[in-house]
Amino acid sequence: MGAERPDGILLGLDLGGTQVKAARFSPSGEREAVARVDSPSHESPEAVLGAVLAALRALLPGGASPAGVGIGVAGVLDLKEGRIIESPNLPVLSGFPLRERLQSALGGAPLRLLNDANAAALGEFHAGAGRPFESMVLLTLGTGIGGAIVLGGKLWEGAAGIAGEAGHMCVQAGGPECTCGARGCLEACVSGWALTRDARAAAARNPASAIASLAEITPKRLADLALGGDAEARALWERAGEMLGTGIASLMNLLNPEAIVLAGGLVQAGDLLLGPARRAWERQAFERARASAQVLPAALGEWAGVRGAVQPFLS
Amino acid sequence: MGAERPDGILLGLDLGGTQVKAARFSPSGEREAVARVDSPSHESPEAVLGAVLAALRALLPGGASPAGVGIGVAGVLDLKEGRIIESPNLPVLSGFPLRERLQSALGGAPLRLLNDANAAALGEFHAGAGRPFESMVLLTLGTGIGGAIVLGGKLWEGAAGIAGEAGHMCVQAGGPECTCGARGCLEACVSGWALTRDARAAAARNPASAIASLAEITPKRLADLALGGDAEARALWERAGEMLGTGIASLMNLLNPEAIVLAGGLVQAGDLLLGPARRAWERQAFERARASAQVLPAALGEWAGVRGAVQPFLS
Repeated sequence: MGAERPDGILLGLDLGGTQVKAARFSPSGEREAVARVDSPSHESPEAVLGAVLAALRALLPGGASPAGVGIGVAGVLDLKEGRIIESPNLPVLSGFPLRERLQSALGGAPLRLLNDANAAALGEFHAGAGRPFESMVLLTLGTGIGGAIVLGGKLWEGAAGIAGEAGHMCVQAGGPECTCGARGCLEACVSGWALTRDARAAAARNPASAIASLAEITPKRLADLALGGDAEARALWERAGEMLGTGIASLMNLLNPEAIVLAGGLVQAGDLLLGPARRAWERQAFERARASAQVLPAALGEWAGVRGAVQPFLS
Repeated sequence: MGAERPDGILLGLDLGGTQVKAARFSPSGEREAVARVDSPSHESPEAVLGAVLAALRALLPGGASPAGVGIGVAGVLDLKEGRIIESPNLPVLSGFPLRERLQSALGGAPLRLLNDANAAALGEFHAGAGRPFESMVLLTLGTGIGGAIVLGGKLWEGAAGIAGEAGHMCVQAGGPECTCGARGCLEACVSGWALTRDARAAAARNPASAIASLAEITPKRLADLALGGDAEARALWERAGEMLGTGIASLMNLLNPEAIVLAGGLVQAGDLLLGPARRAWERQAFERARASAQVLPAALGEWAGVRGAVQPFLS
């Protein structure tokens, strides 16, 4: 089956570190119902499996069997074996043969695992902001930075299934340490955790500052401070935006895509982040590369990955 | 015709700033004869056209008409119109309708223009170092840095035909000025011109140094000095190699290709450049990304582009 258009119900699921989100889709990709359960991401593989099955079964009319199940997982996957190699957000699943276990629990329904950023990219490309285009890079700007690449209408997953790690392009050799062990990665310069790190450093330097007076330092509160006129908070966003624009310029020059779609919580900072980003990519990308690329916000929000996970059964 | 396998003679040509190189190929892609003429790159479009036609006609048995002609051109092309938008190495050809003029001179033979780095990548992918692989990034390390991307067996030319500009990924935000107007591009940190710039600066700082005593500063002479044990020259290569490895790590993380093929004159510096490069990418790329990518020297040398230019008529 796999690539053929099935007649029956399709289920898409996004397995994250905090939530399991799922939806039922018609054979033509219309979303019909959704389900959401907490992710017992630190308990045991069996608990996570149970949550996944609970979400899926909540969407199946009694006794029905799905024609296809797509699962986006936050982590590095062995796509051939259907196994999770490692997942920072779902540490108990490292090495877990997720596809095999799910498939037997689901009575052998066709099942497809995808990396969560790739699933979100497929969703945005086929049903969201990327629909008008043939090529697209998705950047997810959250606590970390994820990415995915669609070229010539096709998702590029890479030789080992890990393509799209735009957060781990180096934009500042010798720069700040990244969670991956390298230095100067895009994610180490602009991401939720990088902003928080820089805000903590600013607070330590200037204990009388507005940043230092925050009860908790989060990107949301830093955005509120900046919008309220705090110069230090504005400078943090300005710097982050510049680095984001630098990374976007690199993607434009290297891949020359038609669209760069921005998803994730940091996008809500709006022009605080995207203003300096735009100035940076306009200064740094080839004129023809930026003229041919639109930079757009994602359209499907938190449901992009769920929608994208069923795409392999639709096309 | 275009994509079909023709019965007759195929001609490939590499139109560069100093030379026009061409070859005749059998319908199965075997090289049968070569021609080489100087490139009158600063004279006039007509002079360049004349040199191209002279090289092609030297390869055609009397009266024969080619079944396909592929031309790799150093520059930014409008692939739809077959026009050269701009070419730093062939400035007189800016705006020149090369395909139209050649096609009428060649009696309407099927003609395909490609960017020269893309042509070289097709050559290496189908007949050189990239043959065993499904995906490959080519880096040409010469005076500047060029690049090209082959994914899933297909050349990715980009929305405006300029994909592959790996030399203009930013690896050092705010770093040295690049010829493209941006700062900290890979090319501005490691390339023939960047090495020469850094060597001149070293010579100016230390007029008693071996570098300062060179009659002319070239990558070749800097390599000879470094191999002879000169610490300053070694440091220049070490720094260039580190930046090259940083760029390679970014390509591994972003594209996760099976192969990264290195072409161009700087590769002749061997371990002076590639030793520190390897240490950098091993430190900075995801383990799975570097484990799945081989970094290899190009196999076809200066004939890669000529071979690649006929590929559109072979596959």
